[in-house]
Amino acid sequence: MRLLDARTPSFRDELMPLLARDEDTVGGIAAAVTDILAQVRARGDEAVRELTERFDGTDGSCGYRVSPEEIEEAVRVCSSEALDAIDLAAGRIEAYHARQLPEDVRWTDEIGTELGWRWTAIDAAGLYVPGGTAVYPSSVLMNALPAKIAGAERIVMVTPAKEGRLNPLVLAAAKRAGVTEIYKIGGAQAVAALAYGTKSIEPVDKIVGPGNAYVTEAKRQVFGRVGIDSIAGPSEITVIADEKADPRAIAADLLSQSEHDVLSQSVLITPSRELIERVEKEIGVQLHGHHREKIAREAIGKQGIAVLTEDLARAAEVANIVAPEHLELVTEDPDALLPLIKHAGAVFLGRYTPEAIGDYVGGPSHVLPTSRSARFSSGLSVYDFLKRMSVTGCSKKAFEKIGPAAARLADEEGLPSHAASVTLRLGK
Amino acid sequence: MRLLDARTPSFRDELMPLLARDEDTVGGIAAAVTDILAQVRARGDEAVRELTERFDGTDGSCGYRVSPEEIEEAVRVCSSEALDAIDLAAGRIEAYHARQLPEDVRWTDEIGTELGWRWTAIDAAGLYVPGGTAVYPSSVLMNALPAKIAGAERIVMVTPAKEGRLNPLVLAAAKRAGVTEIYKIGGAQAVAALAYGTKSIEPVDKIVGPGNAYVTEAKRQVFGRVGIDSIAGPSEITVIADEKADPRAIAADLLSQSEHDVLSQSVLITPSRELIERVEKEIGVQLHGHHREKIAREAIGKQGIAVLTEDLARAAEVANIVAPEHLELVTEDPDALLPLIKHAGAVFLGRYTPEAIGDYVGGPSHVLPTSRSARFSSGLSVYDFLKRMSVTGCSKKAFEKIGPAAARLADEEGLPSHAASVTLRLGK
Repeated sequence: MRLLDARTPSFRDELMPLLARDEDTVGGIAAAVTDILAQVRARGDEAVRELTERFDGTDGSCGYRVSPEEIEEAVRVCSSEALDAIDLAAGRIEAYHARQLPEDVRWTDEIGTELGWRWTAIDAAGLYVPGGTAVYPSSVLMNALPAKIAGAERIVMVTPAKEGRLNPLVLAAAKRAGVTEIYKIGGAQAVAALAYGTKSIEPVDKIVGPGNAYVTEAKRQVFGRVGIDSIAGPSEITVIADEKADPRAIAADLLSQSEHDVLSQSVLITPSRELIERVEKEIGVQLHGHHREKIAREAIGKQGIAVLTEDLARAAEVANIVAPEHLELVTEDPDALLPLIKHAGAVFLGRYTPEAIGDYVGGPSHVLPTSRSARFSSGLSVYDFLKRMSVTGCSKKAFEKIGPAAARLADEEGLPSHAASVTLRLGK
Repeated sequence: MRLLDARTPSFRDELMPLLARDEDTVGGIAAAVTDILAQVRARGDEAVRELTERFDGTDGSCGYRVSPEEIEEAVRVCSSEALDAIDLAAGRIEAYHARQLPEDVRWTDEIGTELGWRWTAIDAAGLYVPGGTAVYPSSVLMNALPAKIAGAERIVMVTPAKEGRLNPLVLAAAKRAGVTEIYKIGGAQAVAALAYGTKSIEPVDKIVGPGNAYVTEAKRQVFGRVGIDSIAGPSEITVIADEKADPRAIAADLLSQSEHDVLSQSVLITPSRELIERVEKEIGVQLHGHHREKIAREAIGKQGIAVLTEDLARAAEVANIVAPEHLELVTEDPDALLPLIKHAGAVFLGRYTPEAIGDYVGGPSHVLPTSRSARFSSGLSVYDFLKRMSVTGCSKKAFEKIGPAAARLADEEGLPSHAASVTLRLGK
């Protein structure tokens, strides 16, 4: 880990470049994706099948929809411990998101205008689930359950299968989460099928879920025709800890990001120089014989940062600059620190809430803003699958009161029919 | 207007192509924008100045920031009627959006986990205001006031000036709306300055507001580094009317979209064939001598649609297919129809609420989802300038209860440090 001292004047200038992530899309990817989208748009299922057979080797002669029998078979081969854990997680995620459901609001203002807003669900949600080596059944729950709680009628999952095979626990999680359709397709072609629809796949209204560079670029290109969630970058964690924190626990928390990806960032912020030293040592111990040692060692070495601050209040300020995806407050009184936190995707309080609790069983979605985007965006929630329509209704009296100002502004803006739509009703 | 009959089996197939808008970005624009962004990123103020002098002819030798004296002078030259109308509109927009401010939520679940979420404001909002012939002071209020109510500290407005001159009412509206900085710059270079920052302009966290194809493409390209609002297309209105509706009023309402742009769409849905005929006639009358006749005539001719339905319930279904930006319910009992509406940006109830009320003085923002994106997105609101961080805090007991399931799922996903961060704390 690189050590920075927040008490030096050059601190911010040293920190900022370390937080910057390469965000440019490689030119070749954008063009390749544009071509794939055009093919699927023009030739539908035929193009999806050609591309899927080429990239995934999955035979599409019977279509790509996963049958109820395949799902039942998948559930059968999962261990009951794994299924119980999925069920516990799903129950807690449902309970948390049910509290998020907002109520419609309506009132009459002082001049007699009916005002308010109504929330309605999107009809169809698309969920991209990556294939490949790292397969995360928990992400299926975290993406699909907020859509289900919001009331989306269709929840359509796409995921690439290597030669037709899918991870059984992913299918079991999809069943538990109320996914209504699953297709064994992936890549930009799957995003295209969800956005434009094909003969065998009805289009959806919004596409969520992480994917590789092609999937991300495809989501960017179909944005506008459908909604998308935010662009996910490498995972990150920031831990604010006091001198009493257990170095073993903190080391494990930092490594729990490093083990994801060589670009994953772990940041420790503390007023205790001794803690930094003990955590560094403990990281060395825990990396020894680690199942993903190579990735974790490179990530913590190149992307790891330890920041020494004068006190915990300053630590909160530094965390706001980092604007991390995950923020642990491993201190004696985390609730005293919480009001100082302005920018973070998810906050974990105290000594018994490692980020892994939030990854699986806490309740809030683990789909969170990365790469400092917690400055302006939020984690996935039921709001992502709802939209709000405003409601305005003037009584004759209210209209007579505010209509003339509307007509005046329409005149100022040079829009005569806007003005006429008011003045005609005013009887002028 | 094109006449469609919703009672025919081919209705949906006839309607859908009429709703489709050309959404592809012209290739040349994307490349030109990429180049402009790179220039501003590399050379900052110097590049902004070169580009602004070239495109707008606005001299940048004293910088582009609008001085307090310029703003005071602008307010002086506006008529008091116009300023009063701005003030009335601003007061109503503030009152509506103040009601939207959400509360933080916190609870303890049955096993002793602290759960909830907190809302915090973004630090700095950027607001793009188009220049050119059509200048809309109302849009300044509608974009800036939700940011102010949300609590953004900086509200930074950029707008291109032709040879240094800005519309006085735009400046007056900016002052009333609490805009904290105004720069006379526009185009992709202004978006780049807001996203990356320059020596004279601090970067912002989110950029909202409509613009031309270059501005829209620039927002798309900086998305991720900063937040953006949705991609705005041509404006649209759908009116559901019963047989008692006043054809003159309905004609004006339909034309109030047509006068914006030749691509603006106006849709009338009604069970009354007679109303359609009378509205058509009235449109002819109102177009005669219309200040923007050419635009309005082309728009209503090519993009106008009248749909005949068996009843009002079916009219609501058709409106849900259209998913319009603006929806008027000009019927005897609009509140009876409202629960059937699933997809719309803003709804206007009854005979005395023309859309122009919503454009200026209703209260809700007039920045709304276009091109059927009301299927998955909402109008601008305080939520666009707030973000929500989730909060999770386990007691030792709660942790012991749910920790094992988290460790189990971490094992299933092959993430040993995730599992270790739990088992270490469990004392295993």
